[in-house]
Amino acid sequence: MDAEFFRQLRVICGDNVVTDDARRRVFESDGLTMKRQSPGVVVLPETLAELRAVVALCHEHGVPLVPRGAGTGLSGGALPLASGVLLVMSKFNRVLEIDAENRLARVEPGVTNLSISEAVRDLGLYYAPDPSSQVACTIGGNVAENSGGVHCLKYGLTVNNVRQLKVVSPEGEIYMVGSDALDNPGFDLLALLHGSEGLLGIVVEITVALLPKAESTRVVMAGFDAVEAAANCVADIIASNILPAGLEMMDQPSIRAAEAFVSAGYPTEAAALLLCELDGTAGDVEAMLTRLTACLERNQATKIEIAVDAGHRERLWQGRKATFPAVGRLSPDYYCMDGTIPRRHLAAVLGRIAELSREYGLGVANVFHAGDGNLHPLILYDGSEPEQVARAEAFGADILELSIEVGGTITGEHGVGVEKIDQMCLQFTPETLSVFHGIKTAFDAEGILNPGKAVPTLNRCAEFGAMHVHRGEDRFPHLERF
Amino acid sequence: MDAEFFRQLRVICGDNVVTDDARRRVFESDGLTMKRQSPGVVVLPETLAELRAVVALCHEHGVPLVPRGAGTGLSGGALPLASGVLLVMSKFNRVLEIDAENRLARVEPGVTNLSISEAVRDLGLYYAPDPSSQVACTIGGNVAENSGGVHCLKYGLTVNNVRQLKVVSPEGEIYMVGSDALDNPGFDLLALLHGSEGLLGIVVEITVALLPKAESTRVVMAGFDAVEAAANCVADIIASNILPAGLEMMDQPSIRAAEAFVSAGYPTEAAALLLCELDGTAGDVEAMLTRLTACLERNQATKIEIAVDAGHRERLWQGRKATFPAVGRLSPDYYCMDGTIPRRHLAAVLGRIAELSREYGLGVANVFHAGDGNLHPLILYDGSEPEQVARAEAFGADILELSIEVGGTITGEHGVGVEKIDQMCLQFTPETLSVFHGIKTAFDAEGILNPGKAVPTLNRCAEFGAMHVHRGEDRFPHLERF
Repeated sequence: MDAEFFRQLRVICGDNVVTDDARRRVFESDGLTMKRQSPGVVVLPETLAELRAVVALCHEHGVPLVPRGAGTGLSGGALPLASGVLLVMSKFNRVLEIDAENRLARVEPGVTNLSISEAVRDLGLYYAPDPSSQVACTIGGNVAENSGGVHCLKYGLTVNNVRQLKVVSPEGEIYMVGSDALDNPGFDLLALLHGSEGLLGIVVEITVALLPKAESTRVVMAGFDAVEAAANCVADIIASNILPAGLEMMDQPSIRAAEAFVSAGYPTEAAALLLCELDGTAGDVEAMLTRLTACLERNQATKIEIAVDAGHRERLWQGRKATFPAVGRLSPDYYCMDGTIPRRHLAAVLGRIAELSREYGLGVANVFHAGDGNLHPLILYDGSEPEQVARAEAFGADILELSIEVGGTITGEHGVGVEKIDQMCLQFTPETLSVFHGIKTAFDAEGILNPGKAVPTLNRCAEFGAMHVHRGEDRFPHLERF
Repeated sequence: MDAEFFRQLRVICGDNVVTDDARRRVFESDGLTMKRQSPGVVVLPETLAELRAVVALCHEHGVPLVPRGAGTGLSGGALPLASGVLLVMSKFNRVLEIDAENRLARVEPGVTNLSISEAVRDLGLYYAPDPSSQVACTIGGNVAENSGGVHCLKYGLTVNNVRQLKVVSPEGEIYMVGSDALDNPGFDLLALLHGSEGLLGIVVEITVALLPKAESTRVVMAGFDAVEAAANCVADIIASNILPAGLEMMDQPSIRAAEAFVSAGYPTEAAALLLCELDGTAGDVEAMLTRLTACLERNQATKIEIAVDAGHRERLWQGRKATFPAVGRLSPDYYCMDGTIPRRHLAAVLGRIAELSREYGLGVANVFHAGDGNLHPLILYDGSEPEQVARAEAFGADILELSIEVGGTITGEHGVGVEKIDQMCLQFTPETLSVFHGIKTAFDAEGILNPGKAVPTLNRCAEFGAMHVHRGEDRFPHLERF
């Protein structure tokens, strides 16, 4: 990035090129606040022509580009580079077209998740994936991370709800991916771009599928005296042919933090709590509700509360939705983890996380999308003490590795970013990582898009492996339990 | 393929190496019988160790490999190479594990589609995708082509129903793709392998998701005096918040052929017929049925028949399922096309196909998955007359190009194979084709897996483009209609 590069950037984007220290520092981290780096320069293009020119300029000068939506990502996927461009997509914020007949909306990447549903509310439609950050997070970021939410058990992830993308290549060229058709010829680039964390292309338009609002919705809360009972109940619900729209679990620290924060009416003496939402036609929902209640009773639920109206439903959900900020009041900082495990290991993994909490001397509160086996342990620490930060990171890494060991994965919906890049070395063989590198090369031969994120080099894995073994090969003596 | 190569093949697979002319000729085509080529050698490995050794031997000798399931594919994806190995997977035919609790089955690729559902019937479960060849086609072939079926409108394609694959690389190495988790870190290799037509790897184990059988199923048949009315009715059904398990349409030649063949009770005077299956809980299905009937009535259905029991349902479906063999009685051969179009163009595209039928002097019968906009025109021809074969191919190519022009795609569920490889040049830009080549290289740098299928070289496209323009730039003067 020499003077000529900056001069040309300003010719393209004028005042939307940010170089002063204070304004650059605003963008130094995304939702993974543990990692901070002020960007070399911030660019906020306003038009597709500007964006293509910026990308082509970076390509010509070999300057790396980090795309960023709202910066709500939790794995550091939008962590800037000191000698790179941070490409902020916030000015691409228009809903371009709503096609009610075919239930599609074509939007720009900087549109927030929630505002899509708001734009089609009067048509009785909505966009299904709902990350807890949906007020702020953008649909472009959702595509990059393949975001989920509390309703993805029934309605799928972002990839299951997007039909087409308009993409700018690292050379600045435009191409379309996907279509309104059920299947597409050629390799599945639409699926490949979802969750690709800005490594393959810059998404500039997204056609999402809309769903009609369900005729009926019921929410049920249940408390349990033991985590095992709640975990068994989750398995029983799924086995009973009930497909909930959402099935969430919270442990006692989470229940208490949420209750103290928003008074949702949660049983603070319970060891675990399930929140289950059923939706569909009225008859269907009532039939499922009968089966669900039977399920809760035979799994020793100690308190069952069925919401009687929309306000009641809203109150029950409010506790769950406020858990993150509520836990934030327990400690100066918290570190939100994201791993998936086979549901049958839920109770054992929670037990092991409790042991690790004692070993590391750091508190933990657990909330999770139980139906999916997607855990979100929140590790409590004080970010002003570097030694605590290191302990929190090591604790988090242990949770990720535990997820792999029980047959799960290191990310359910938050992506890999910089946070989990070392654990990718454990999740995948060198052969598979080489395939990932080949795919990256197919899209971005020069490697200018978001380098250093999501996919580790084999060298990095070799170094991590050496360090990892050094830490002791029997770090998980409990493994025979699984 | 020198003598040493054959010697080593026999060391690995013994009598399962087929070299004599007559036995090789059995494998000279798949379901696209227009294209025939006797394979250089046929190998039927019995174990994973044998298969890996065969693949590694081919890699070492630079001999191309064409994988084949049951050979029911309709686009020539399993067309053999004269100087290559045809790798027949039929001896990998075991159901390895059924996990009822998690609704998963782990099977080998040579297991037929239907036998998965049969293996879990007593558990009240089934495997959803149901290509019309489901008695014969294998799940490995389904993965390779990302097969659909009459129920994919509601239940998705193969990719939406598979959780994990065990794959052998072109070097003979084994790796796993996907997991039981909702999302997976890294690029989405599971989606990439689906529909990859044997170009990226050889699938040796498949973990499929199972579904509980619906509590209630209803089937409705409706006749229409005009194709437009039936097409409008399809749009109205979708807009009425009815998500049918299947929504099929047939035109008059198909109706008459099917009725003459199996006496399903179809109205032979109707211009078009819709078959609609509803499933779910009993209450849900009855509510949808009321809305569906209203929909049919306001769209001028001339005959509405609601099946009263399982036998009646079966009879209504039987006509649709027998359409291909029934049409086969009208003509010595038929050529089954497969394209998708936006539903709103259904009537106009059918009109254009009728015009093309007159221009080419070849009959056509249409059946399609109307809910998906997935057309299956059956072009009638006599394969013993080379001139008719050429006309049928040109007619088919026009239908594919028409699909692209109205915003659709050249394949809904049958794949590209050799059949549609030239139309890939029209469907995609050279930039996107280059990305496809890069992906192929990431998996198979030497290009030994199924070369010449699915993805055209840029040279081939340049030649096709030249030929194509030569045929006349105004071949589709009707285009302004769309």
